[in-house]
Amino acid sequence: MSDRFRVTCRIRAADAGEAAARAEGIAREQTVEIPRDVVPPGHVEDEILGRVEEVTRLGPGIWQAVISYSPESAGGEITQFLNVVFGNSSIQQGLRVTAIDPGRTMGAALPRPRFGIAGIRRLCGRDRGGLIAPVLKPMGLPPEYFARIAAGCVRGGADIVKEDHGLAGQPTAPFRTRVAAVARAVAEENARSGRQALYFPNLSGRAEEIGDNLQFAKEARAGGITVMPGLFGFGTVARIARDAGLSLPVMTHPAFLGPYVLAPDNGFDHGTLFGTIQRLAGADISVFPNVGGRFGFTAAECRQIAAACRTPEGHGMPILPSPGGGMSAERAADMRTMYGEDAVFLLGGSLLKEPDRIDEAVARMRDALDAG
Amino acid sequence: MSDRFRVTCRIRAADAGEAAARAEGIAREQTVEIPRDVVPPGHVEDEILGRVEEVTRLGPGIWQAVISYSPESAGGEITQFLNVVFGNSSIQQGLRVTAIDPGRTMGAALPRPRFGIAGIRRLCGRDRGGLIAPVLKPMGLPPEYFARIAAGCVRGGADIVKEDHGLAGQPTAPFRTRVAAVARAVAEENARSGRQALYFPNLSGRAEEIGDNLQFAKEARAGGITVMPGLFGFGTVARIARDAGLSLPVMTHPAFLGPYVLAPDNGFDHGTLFGTIQRLAGADISVFPNVGGRFGFTAAECRQIAAACRTPEGHGMPILPSPGGGMSAERAADMRTMYGEDAVFLLGGSLLKEPDRIDEAVARMRDALDAG
Repeated sequence: MSDRFRVTCRIRAADAGEAAARAEGIAREQTVEIPRDVVPPGHVEDEILGRVEEVTRLGPGIWQAVISYSPESAGGEITQFLNVVFGNSSIQQGLRVTAIDPGRTMGAALPRPRFGIAGIRRLCGRDRGGLIAPVLKPMGLPPEYFARIAAGCVRGGADIVKEDHGLAGQPTAPFRTRVAAVARAVAEENARSGRQALYFPNLSGRAEEIGDNLQFAKEARAGGITVMPGLFGFGTVARIARDAGLSLPVMTHPAFLGPYVLAPDNGFDHGTLFGTIQRLAGADISVFPNVGGRFGFTAAECRQIAAACRTPEGHGMPILPSPGGGMSAERAADMRTMYGEDAVFLLGGSLLKEPDRIDEAVARMRDALDAG
Repeated sequence: MSDRFRVTCRIRAADAGEAAARAEGIAREQTVEIPRDVVPPGHVEDEILGRVEEVTRLGPGIWQAVISYSPESAGGEITQFLNVVFGNSSIQQGLRVTAIDPGRTMGAALPRPRFGIAGIRRLCGRDRGGLIAPVLKPMGLPPEYFARIAAGCVRGGADIVKEDHGLAGQPTAPFRTRVAAVARAVAEENARSGRQALYFPNLSGRAEEIGDNLQFAKEARAGGITVMPGLFGFGTVARIARDAGLSLPVMTHPAFLGPYVLAPDNGFDHGTLFGTIQRLAGADISVFPNVGGRFGFTAAECRQIAAACRTPEGHGMPILPSPGGGMSAERAADMRTMYGEDAVFLLGGSLLKEPDRIDEAVARMRDALDAG
């Protein structure tokens, strides 16, 4: 018999009786989805049915439940795993997932980050210090513009040249034309300046084109790929992480995932969504909105994400948290203090004030971070 | 120059000035994602940059903004369209999308429901009256069990035999073995009893297997497919809707989508998520948690969903709302009054009390609904 995976939730309930009943309800909802007296005896009742392991009181009206599930219920695959973790129960008010422990059996069945912190550092040749990743934008400009900006970023000392998550199939710069042009520019500038900057195009296209687009990016010599699991599904992240032939590092972007964390009583804790689940899906770098930027994440929430990305107790190898927004040369020292060295700092739109001097702006950021 | 698509949001702001600034911020965030003074003049500024069309006061501290976007920004594809509608802005507190108007150009580029209400009625031979769809479960049982239950459902008068969204790749009933067995049982019972019940297996598998699994379901003579866009992405729904060779009706299931509607100030309005967006992605039937079931949707929220599914003013042809949970022979008359005839009523786990008499239970529901 295999070990079970465990999901910890914070639930609202008036008293111990209601908390226990809610926990039993969740255990049923996420597996057999039938009334308790209809559950067939034997294998379904003994193994498949979710099991309430413990219910404890956290405070007035707030309880914590740990529910365990059979790896069999998830069938060895990340999408169905997340369906058991939080499919229908995501629709319940006052229920937030605060931890996921895949256990040995499920952990072995799920993908793992292929590169992690050590692998990304090796690929871009940055042994120490924070990594910096300027972002190519805005949408609506031609491939030559992005190629030129990308070369400037490499020259200035970027570790990763990331495409904005909004660059997709715009007619001014279709995916393949753009990826080919930027990859070539990055490779040439790497050769010229003796650098190893990695170019991460933003995955886009129709569902049926994703496989070919990934292959195209690989053959064009992209150094990794940016994926929005909120729109493409975590199964797409897992697909890339598992594909040994492709062997592309994955950076996940939080677009469309906001509602999972914004309301304190629903969804997932920040660290669970932007740390734990990203590792379970096989991401190497997890982008999230930085404190002090245009979004409202607190310093504590950002720290929770960074911790979940990097804890040695997590699934697979530690991965890189990547705070986006609100980064500047002036804030570099603070950011280094907050996140330490093992982080990818996204550099946003203010760099683009003078596109032809972006190399200098990136170099200033590099210096500020190293001096910090 | 093409017409723009329009996104209506409800935003929190202290006064008119803050509301206008927030709206401008969203228009930028969702497109160029750079400070206003860095936006390149010409095409990007004139076309690509989101445009605030109007900001009106709804009540104390609550405003409505209508923002328009160039179809070019979405590149003619549902995933990037949703990214422009709500990618990064999904991470902002106090911002809820309440309406989406794709406009002519974007509307023509997006998929459309292939079957809609009329098509589904034609396929299952039910000209009038509500449609009923018992659900095959629980996970953990073998294919022969599901085949036997499915045959009973057909005999009892089911229009659609739907698989539970939790049936995936469990080792007791792997996707292909199960789909083949159930499809055969449904076809045989249809032939025997002169019915046209449609079998909707639940799409599952790794991302790279989805195309083959869809093809397998089609060849096995499935009558449609159930998809969870919250886990597989709306691009997967669009992929099926567009595939003329496959030509499979799509029923979408709300698993993992809960947080998008649960908090009143974030995410989407119920009708927008479970009606408008489903049609834009090409779904024919949209499942949502019924009022009075295990989830907390109100009657007004359910009515909003049904209206968005069926309004003739919507994208493509009207589709079938499918309330799940809380259905019983006793409630049939109420449900018919509430939803009218053009709905698919899911029949839940209580039917499974006596699996070998499920035909009688389904027939009772059919009678109750027709008498209602």
